[in-house]
Amino acid sequence: MIEILQIGQRLVRDERVITHIILVARAFNATKIYMHENNEHMKNTVYKINSTWGGNFEIDFINNWKKFIKIKKKSYKIIHLTMYGEDINCACSKINAENNMLIIVGASKVPREIYEIADYNIAIGNQPHSEISALAVFLDRIQHGKQFLKKFNNAKIEIIPDVRGKNILSKTID
Amino acid sequence: MIEILQIGQRLVRDERVITHIILVARAFNATKIYMHENNEHMKNTVYKINSTWGGNFEIDFINNWKKFIKIKKKSYKIIHLTMYGEDINCACSKINAENNMLIIVGASKVPREIYEIADYNIAIGNQPHSEISALAVFLDRIQHGKQFLKKFNNAKIEIIPDVRGKNILSKTID
Repeated sequence: MIEILQIGQRLVRDERVITHIILVARAFNATKIYMHENNEHMKNTVYKINSTWGGNFEIDFINNWKKFIKIKKKSYKIIHLTMYGEDINCACSKINAENNMLIIVGASKVPREIYEIADYNIAIGNQPHSEISALAVFLDRIQHGKQFLKKFNNAKIEIIPDVRGKNILSKTID
Repeated sequence: MIEILQIGQRLVRDERVITHIILVARAFNATKIYMHENNEHMKNTVYKINSTWGGNFEIDFINNWKKFIKIKKKSYKIIHLTMYGEDINCACSKINAENNMLIIVGASKVPREIYEIADYNIAIGNQPHSEISALAVFLDRIQHGKQFLKKFNNAKIEIIPDVRGKNILSKTID
């Protein structure tokens, strides 16, 4: 079970970045994203993507991230993605042995307590890049590409991989 | 040699997305990014990131992408990242054998000719996610994590990986 907690973004400025994080979470086999601020618009984005592309990826909003993480920590490993953390090239094998994961994706300013409460602080390289790329590479590394085998139920459209163009299967759902 | 060509984004709406693409390209060991539209602001972003974090990542602007790709194709393999393409899980070993690559990263509307002129159209999964995540996972897959060993010369600051906090080395350059 892989879930995402996204904190620290500023809704107005970062709406496109947040949308990309949601899409990566869903496409790379996480089941749910929790966000720190209530955002009906993002709920609608998730509804529309599920409706067209299938599956039942979930979004939920939390008020108190400290309390939330403490409760989750009883049954999930808390993995904080940060450029300051332990090198993913070294940490990958340890993490592969974990079952339930709550992955924390933050913006530039993440509260100090997150570093303390996390079971793992993991760096996808120690250069600045993007929380979107960090999440994608992390999910790809821990699932070894198997995330792309996932089937999304009740999709209206499906892409058939093609070496030279666009091959889209439109489905009628009874 | 890995270079990136970024086409199709709209500068105003997509400025943050473009910035993330630039940062991923640099952090994941590409040497240069070409952009379709002239943008002095992005040039400044690259200058600042090199100045603080080191290395000499380059940015350049092109007028005619068709002509540009045709010239590049003489000595580079053209790799177009698209959700409609061939599955990365299958294509990776072929691409590993290539030396010089020009990786094309587009927005939602990429001209049809790109699919034709590319040597490879590669899908990082067939679900919608993000051109930022697609680029990152592709560069991670073809370099097997070795991109994170790259040293960036003349950096003013460097991060020392740490399991529990922020460990930043500030350097004085003579």
